[in-house]
Amino acid sequence: MSKIGVHSFVWSAGSTKDELERTLERSHELGFKLVEFSYLDPKQVDVNWLASRIRQLGLDVAVSMGLPTEGDISSEDGSVVANGEAILDRAVALVRDLGGTKLAGILSSSHGKQERALSRKGWDKSVSTLSKVANRAKAAGVTLNLEIVNRFESNMLNTAAQGLAYIKDTGASNVFLHLDTFHMNIEEADVGLAIRNAADKIGYVHIGESHRGYLGTGNIDFAAIFDALIAIGWDDYVTFESFSTTIVDKDLSLKTAIWRNLWEDNAALAKHARAYIVLGLETAKRKAELVKAAHLPMAC
Amino acid sequence: MSKIGVHSFVWSAGSTKDELERTLERSHELGFKLVEFSYLDPKQVDVNWLASRIRQLGLDVAVSMGLPTEGDISSEDGSVVANGEAILDRAVALVRDLGGTKLAGILSSSHGKQERALSRKGWDKSVSTLSKVANRAKAAGVTLNLEIVNRFESNMLNTAAQGLAYIKDTGASNVFLHLDTFHMNIEEADVGLAIRNAADKIGYVHIGESHRGYLGTGNIDFAAIFDALIAIGWDDYVTFESFSTTIVDKDLSLKTAIWRNLWEDNAALAKHARAYIVLGLETAKRKAELVKAAHLPMAC
Amino acid sequence: MSKIGVHSFVWSAGSTKDELERTLERSHELGFKLVEFSYLDPKQVDVNWLASRIRQLGLDVAVSMGLPTEGDISSEDGSVVANGEAILDRAVALVRDLGGTKLAGILSSSHGKQERALSRKGWDKSVSTLSKVANRAKAAGVTLNLEIVNRFESNMLNTAAQGLAYIKDTGASNVFLHLDTFHMNIEEADVGLAIRNAADKIGYVHIGESHRGYLGTGNIDFAAIFDALIAIGWDDYVTFESFSTTIVDKDLSLKTAIWRNLWEDNAALAKHARAYIVLGLETAKRKAELVKAAHLPMAC
Amino acid sequence: MSKIGVHSFVWSAGSTKDELERTLERSHELGFKLVEFSYLDPKQVDVNWLASRIRQLGLDVAVSMGLPTEGDISSEDGSVVANGEAILDRAVALVRDLGGTKLAGILSSSHGKQERALSRKGWDKSVSTLSKVANRAKAAGVTLNLEIVNRFESNMLNTAAQGLAYIKDTGASNVFLHLDTFHMNIEEADVGLAIRNAADKIGYVHIGESHRGYLGTGNIDFAAIFDALIAIGWDDYVTFESFSTTIVDKDLSLKTAIWRNLWEDNAALAKHARAYIVLGLETAKRKAELVKAAHLPMAC
Repeated sequence: MSKIGVHSFVWSAGSTKDELERTLERSHELGFKLVEFSYLDPKQVDVNWLASRIRQLGLDVAVSMGLPTEGDISSEDGSVVANGEAILDRAVALVRDLGGTKLAGILSSSHGKQERALSRKGWDKSVSTLSKVANRAKAAGVTLNLEIVNRFESNMLNTAAQGLAYIKDTGASNVFLHLDTFHMNIEEADVGLAIRNAADKIGYVHIGESHRGYLGTGNIDFAAIFDALIAIGWDDYVTFESFSTTIVDKDLSLKTAIWRNLWEDNAALAKHARAYIVLGLETAKRKAELVKAAHLPMAC
Repeated sequence: MSKIGVHSFVWSAGSTKDELERTLERSHELGFKLVEFSYLDPKQVDVNWLASRIRQLGLDVAVSMGLPTEGDISSEDGSVVANGEAILDRAVALVRDLGGTKLAGILSSSHGKQERALSRKGWDKSVSTLSKVANRAKAAGVTLNLEIVNRFESNMLNTAAQGLAYIKDTGASNVFLHLDTFHMNIEEADVGLAIRNAADKIGYVHIGESHRGYLGTGNIDFAAIFDALIAIGWDDYVTFESFSTTIVDKDLSLKTAIWRNLWEDNAALAKHARAYIVLGLETAKRKAELVKAAHLPMAC
Repeated sequence: MSKIGVHSFVWSAGSTKDELERTLERSHELGFKLVEFSYLDPKQVDVNWLASRIRQLGLDVAVSMGLPTEGDISSEDGSVVANGEAILDRAVALVRDLGGTKLAGILSSSHGKQERALSRKGWDKSVSTLSKVANRAKAAGVTLNLEIVNRFESNMLNTAAQGLAYIKDTGASNVFLHLDTFHMNIEEADVGLAIRNAADKIGYVHIGESHRGYLGTGNIDFAAIFDALIAIGWDDYVTFESFSTTIVDKDLSLKTAIWRNLWEDNAALAKHARAYIVLGLETAKRKAELVKAAHLPMAC
Repeated sequence: MSKIGVHSFVWSAGSTKDELERTLERSHELGFKLVEFSYLDPKQVDVNWLASRIRQLGLDVAVSMGLPTEGDISSEDGSVVANGEAILDRAVALVRDLGGTKLAGILSSSHGKQERALSRKGWDKSVSTLSKVANRAKAAGVTLNLEIVNRFESNMLNTAAQGLAYIKDTGASNVFLHLDTFHMNIEEADVGLAIRNAADKIGYVHIGESHRGYLGTGNIDFAAIFDALIAIGWDDYVTFESFSTTIVDKDLSLKTAIWRNLWEDNAALAKHARAYIVLGLETAKRKAELVKAAHLPMAC
């Protein structure tokens, strides 16, 4: 059965020691097993301290990021690509130094609304660059999990099928898909089938609602998603993600276009989310078992 | 918001003092607010003691039943109708004596697979007989809640629309619908619309899965049902009902055709059911509020 | 892609030459490729004539039936079993003589509401008897398709998983499942998974709504069913079945408890059903293709 | 029952006489009753000729647009607002001159990914400006239908509830909502409830899939949408909209981030869409009638 994580921006977009400490504590208190941080700058954050706190609390950690325009590895500008490669390398190092194994997010292109379609050349440049990063990440014990996002946040990997093609092109064994239900709801033809078809190449999963608020209060067919996760035997992390104007990260809130106040009480939100995921997965598991039960008559 | 009850057959089909006591205690321990009993024979059960235990535990109580063939008030045989009328009167008295207000179940015809279609005459006889019972029930502070059941359990009231027509024909103010999601899944064209259309004539609600096992492991769209209950402002009882070969009532298990062992651990089942209903209703309420929220930009 | 059939009771429950002729003609006119007849008595129906009309119109044919109580092959009474075996043999002969290959329906037990649970002995008797019939059917080029029906119509095979266990016990290669969406909606934990899990043992499919009326006006998730049929590559028949009090078969209407008038104009019903199935399957196919499409950027 | 329209970009993004003629003809041939054009520049298009062709073919017409950044009426720059007001006036004139009555699209803010949240001042400026345009549009017999779009295409009206608040603020009687299922799937908590809650203020409806391709091959619960349209008695236009890289409008394709080739054969797409909508609405209507049918037993 899946383990459940939470994105740190449910608690805070800040990265002072106090803010990070509170994020870890509240995640731990509410029963989450992993905290996902957006990339933290080691010049501003005491990485060793953070790693030790994570360890002390028995938590796991993941890092996510989206490449900036000036670090887009699908760019035709070699210096931009080189910058992106360096950014990825630093992120891999951060994951390793925090004691984690997963780098996730928009790693193959820049994050944000693009003003033109991707070219084949851009695809190839991205593949070859990421392959090199993956090679070095392997030595660090880190996997690269490519987030499949909606059309307004990248012009490259909008569906799991595209991500699988990309992974195949890299030839790397430590590159996986990072699926996110919010994005799947916009781009995938069938959320359940997308998960089933990608089964052995999924590395990380985000659970978020269609409007990014409370789970179950939008349009996503979470039963189909939980059914598919059970069907493929997923036993790794699913991480809850939600955004509201209550907690603003200057960069991410703009790129993800957070204009509405969908919640204020983040503890109530996180409790509800965890209960929703736990109950949903348990129910899906019972369903999958029941549909196979032969219920033979008893000898008597 | 709805209050949550549980059918006693989740715990036991027996009616010894010990069995009844255990049923009350376990229901109470797990947080249910009402226990529904199938008709209990006052000659065999100490009604005063049971009423006092219910009161002591702060529980509420409902009684359900299905008329037997020999008490079918839609019969053309006057003595059968008279017998049915007496059975209904005794059931009303039991509800009152237990301190409850709701008699539920298949009250307008016999319970079981019929071998012919209902005639208009049978309908009229049922209506006139039940009207008299309703009149006396009113004096006892008891409402009659007509269970809408699937075609294999009655040939009379299979849909809420039929039930509404019946209630109108009685002219009584204490006759309501007893809706049950298991039956609705077979007979209603639209479970949500059926609830909305019947809003002010619903008196009692059963929550059961399509195969009568764990909630969420079958085909019922419970989100649609919770949405509809929130939409009509339902704040009365919804009662969980589930059947397995684990707990057999000789009469009811046959009439409801329980051949499969869908669960053995009834405490696990009941805990799951309560969590499922609580979370489902809370989520539906949040959704209904969110869809109306104007989210105006802040003055600043 | 599936081929689409229609049950003759959409047109008529009668078996005079005129009625059979009209049934064939209307089915053919509306584009159905197969007509399913309930068992026709060769003493009363000119089988050779019927077979030739079916051939002339380029139609295919299937025969369905439910064993009567006096021919229940799960009975403990040897003469009842022998009678059932003879009935099955006659039905196999009818299929062959009509030029068909599929016998379908409730072949392993009697059809109707049972008054007791099936015993292990009953199961074994049914398996051994049906195995013999299957052996002879094989020589006639006929498959036996065991209809999985709801609890009120048989106490034996209520789920696909039970049917698979039964088929395995027979050891026969020409025994398959006959799945029916009406029944699946009541008994299966997951209609799509049930189809996927049974993929290579499905022999025949009935498409019917939860209340047995117009497709899409009830509770069945037909998209899930069409998705599953596409997923398993089903290219055999799906047959539309619907019952209303408009067309009454004395035996079947009672066993299936048809009390309501869900339609009167059978041509409108059948046209709608065919359009619904055709569009549903086409849409499911496009969806399955789309979810796999890599949509790589073009070289340019 | 709704009438069905089609967006011209299914056929062509061009506006030469030949392209417009072909768009009208194909729409008409396939049975659509309305063609929606993105704003056409009267300096480049012979409006009189187009109006007469629309009339000759018995078609109806709507015009949609999104305000450009330099015409954003929620801007703090008065000259930008004045420019937007003039653009809206010209669009109203075009609708009138084409013989239509509906201006639709993103009329209250600019169309595209915003880089900051809307201020209360921006809201007020937009309301007061649009009110003036609405007043003049009334004289021209034209309604303003505010498209509710996803967060990445505007920072102002993302939900029907926001749109209702905006309409109320205008005080105008000819301002309505333009709902679009693609956007609703991202932003609304409940697509059906959103339609029901906005019933008498809906002026125009777009039917598009979650990924903007073939209807039914994505995540939108169209049954819920058709049910809601039937529930509110909608008998005005629903217009099919779909985008693929096959047909590119330099401006709109970028703003809506069309990166994938979801179809090439637009006639097949449009035929499928029309059949899907017609069948969906018919089925929803039958369902709404069925759920209310009392099915009383016949006197006999």
